[in-house]
Amino acid sequence: MDGMGTNRLEAFSDGVIAVIITIMVLELKPPHDTTLTSLRSLAPEFLSYILSFLVVAIMWVNHHHMMHSVRRADARLLWANNTLLFWMSLVPFVTAYMGNNCRDPRAVALYGVVLALCSVSFVLLRSAIIHQHRDNPDLARYHRRILFKNLNSLLFYVAAVPLAFVDVRIAFFIFVFVALSYFLPERKLAEPEAAPQ
Amino acid sequence: MDGMGTNRLEAFSDGVIAVIITIMVLELKPPHDTTLTSLRSLAPEFLSYILSFLVVAIMWVNHHHMMHSVRRADARLLWANNTLLFWMSLVPFVTAYMGNNCRDPRAVALYGVVLALCSVSFVLLRSAIIHQHRDNPDLARYHRRILFKNLNSLLFYVAAVPLAFVDVRIAFFIFVFVALSYFLPERKLAEPEAAPQ
Amino acid sequence: MDGMGTNRLEAFSDGVIAVIITIMVLELKPPHDTTLTSLRSLAPEFLSYILSFLVVAIMWVNHHHMMHSVRRADARLLWANNTLLFWMSLVPFVTAYMGNNCRDPRAVALYGVVLALCSVSFVLLRSAIIHQHRDNPDLARYHRRILFKNLNSLLFYVAAVPLAFVDVRIAFFIFVFVALSYFLPERKLAEPEAAPQ
Amino acid sequence: MDGMGTNRLEAFSDGVIAVIITIMVLELKPPHDTTLTSLRSLAPEFLSYILSFLVVAIMWVNHHHMMHSVRRADARLLWANNTLLFWMSLVPFVTAYMGNNCRDPRAVALYGVVLALCSVSFVLLRSAIIHQHRDNPDLARYHRRILFKNLNSLLFYVAAVPLAFVDVRIAFFIFVFVALSYFLPERKLAEPEAAPQ
Repeated sequence: MDGMGTNRLEAFSDGVIAVIITIMVLELKPPHDTTLTSLRSLAPEFLSYILSFLVVAIMWVNHHHMMHSVRRADARLLWANNTLLFWMSLVPFVTAYMGNNCRDPRAVALYGVVLALCSVSFVLLRSAIIHQHRDNPDLARYHRRILFKNLNSLLFYVAAVPLAFVDVRIAFFIFVFVALSYFLPERKLAEPEAAPQ
Repeated sequence: MDGMGTNRLEAFSDGVIAVIITIMVLELKPPHDTTLTSLRSLAPEFLSYILSFLVVAIMWVNHHHMMHSVRRADARLLWANNTLLFWMSLVPFVTAYMGNNCRDPRAVALYGVVLALCSVSFVLLRSAIIHQHRDNPDLARYHRRILFKNLNSLLFYVAAVPLAFVDVRIAFFIFVFVALSYFLPERKLAEPEAAPQ
Repeated sequence: MDGMGTNRLEAFSDGVIAVIITIMVLELKPPHDTTLTSLRSLAPEFLSYILSFLVVAIMWVNHHHMMHSVRRADARLLWANNTLLFWMSLVPFVTAYMGNNCRDPRAVALYGVVLALCSVSFVLLRSAIIHQHRDNPDLARYHRRILFKNLNSLLFYVAAVPLAFVDVRIAFFIFVFVALSYFLPERKLAEPEAAPQ
Repeated sequence: MDGMGTNRLEAFSDGVIAVIITIMVLELKPPHDTTLTSLRSLAPEFLSYILSFLVVAIMWVNHHHMMHSVRRADARLLWANNTLLFWMSLVPFVTAYMGNNCRDPRAVALYGVVLALCSVSFVLLRSAIIHQHRDNPDLARYHRRILFKNLNSLLFYVAAVPLAFVDVRIAFFIFVFVALSYFLPERKLAEPEAAPQ
């Protein structure tokens, strides 16, 4: 029963994340004329789309790694996961909002708020998994190490919110920096996860 | 053949529910300016979205628990499930309608009607499962106990429809109350389900 | 490898059909006021939505039964399936078109044309399966019996196209009649399929 | 762990591709009147939709064949796959853009650019798989043979971009030609893949 529950949790999460990552493109309204000016005016929406695609793809990859260690789809885990999906579901909204108002600190700050709340949900989900492995110190220690990384991203996102009001470019830089920071260590993190399992 | 049918039933239901829960966000149109007034004017749509996300997520969790006990995807079960998905598919519509007209009793009552019809479908689906387990009194008794809970939610939703015309806030309170009532007992209900399987 | 291919074919088809059946609701635009007149003016769109939900759900159930007998996801089967998904993907378009112009024979006839082309695709898909079972006369005979039923629906849909120009209500009656005709024999057909497998 | 990771990679990719192929139909706005003129004015959008449905379906079939040989969902493979999904997610955008401006070389060239970038991603994904099979010369040779085919399509798409400025019909011809070229050899390619596995 546990395995089955976990599979369906993954399938549902994959479905929701697949829809989230894809419907964002619906906000890119194709202009009705083809002057370079009208295409160029899409640039902020497009950059906003690239950033969000990257962020959601990273979240999916992390979710994918995390689910490997889930033992059973209990109530705490299910609802931590639903909380994550809720905040992720707002990404298309804030992406379009920031794309339309890319120089406005309020739109950029709101984007940071939603990413920060996604990070909080990852922390909750990771804690629920650590709780399931409280009798396995190796795996729990491994997850606590990544939890630290999740908290790190959270801190950066929280910092981006007020910094957007200083200069929106600082906030953008933080969003891109946090996203890129997931690339280098990914491989290193993948190895130990494989080991204890 | 039975197992395969059940898996595909789950996969299709997960797909439909994943799309339902995610496309609701498309109704949250990002305002083109960033004044606090225009953001604040989104508040009813946003609260309506949170409520519906919660309601659909609860329905998914219940569906997930219920499918554990399905023996075979027979015609009765398939069509009880399709009926449920039909009424659930209207949730994005009534969510947007209530979000746009949150003080209008007719919009709030219509939301209640759709949730009530989802509950009726859950009762039909649960009855189809009880019918499959008519030779297993333990499991049938367990499902009848939850059926009672489904009927309870149904009663509350039905009551919310006329009460919306007294004061829409009573109806809102009922929607939130029914949703939150699913949280405490979830854990208790999960245990016995694991046992007979 | 064969089983895996079939699973993924099912998963992809389920995904596409789940999105098709759910995005149709996006065409039901919630009116911004709540007068009964504006809700009532949605009636044709809504009836059109119910009919299409039913039609797509029946197609999914048939697809589900058909896939049980697929042996391998070969090129012919893959492309018969893609052809079916293509015509099914046009159902949301003709549903909205007929909903907006429910008294116009051209809109109703176009709906019939798309359903007829879905039926043709079912015939192609069923033939591809019969071809895979050409060394198993029992299963091939069973599939030929349902093929006859598919051809029957096709004939009705083809007849609905010119009849829509006589009176759109005749065409509607045919659409509903074909849909309901799938309910009674479903159970009877399910039994023999279980047997040879 | 490997098998599980691969399954989920497939499930997520299938979900994203299923949404991509289906939401394109949302760009086909049903006209509010039913004059033949207004239907006929949809012809470019519709032809653009058919072409993109075919192109995305071919990409899905190729992805499906390619995933058979994936050994483990390592970081390189995951991100090659995410890159592919990113460029594929832009297909609905360029489809609508080309549909609205079908005689404008810039819109047609942009369509070619996105298809070319999808082909580049296929080359990256195929290389990641070849890297996984570097100790199995037979399978690596087999994949290098298809890699050559991927590079071929890429060349054609790249050529279509400047040729759209000579005459958009040359570019259309190339898009259709590349798509149709996938049909004949599909069966031949499927056989050797089955063998080494």
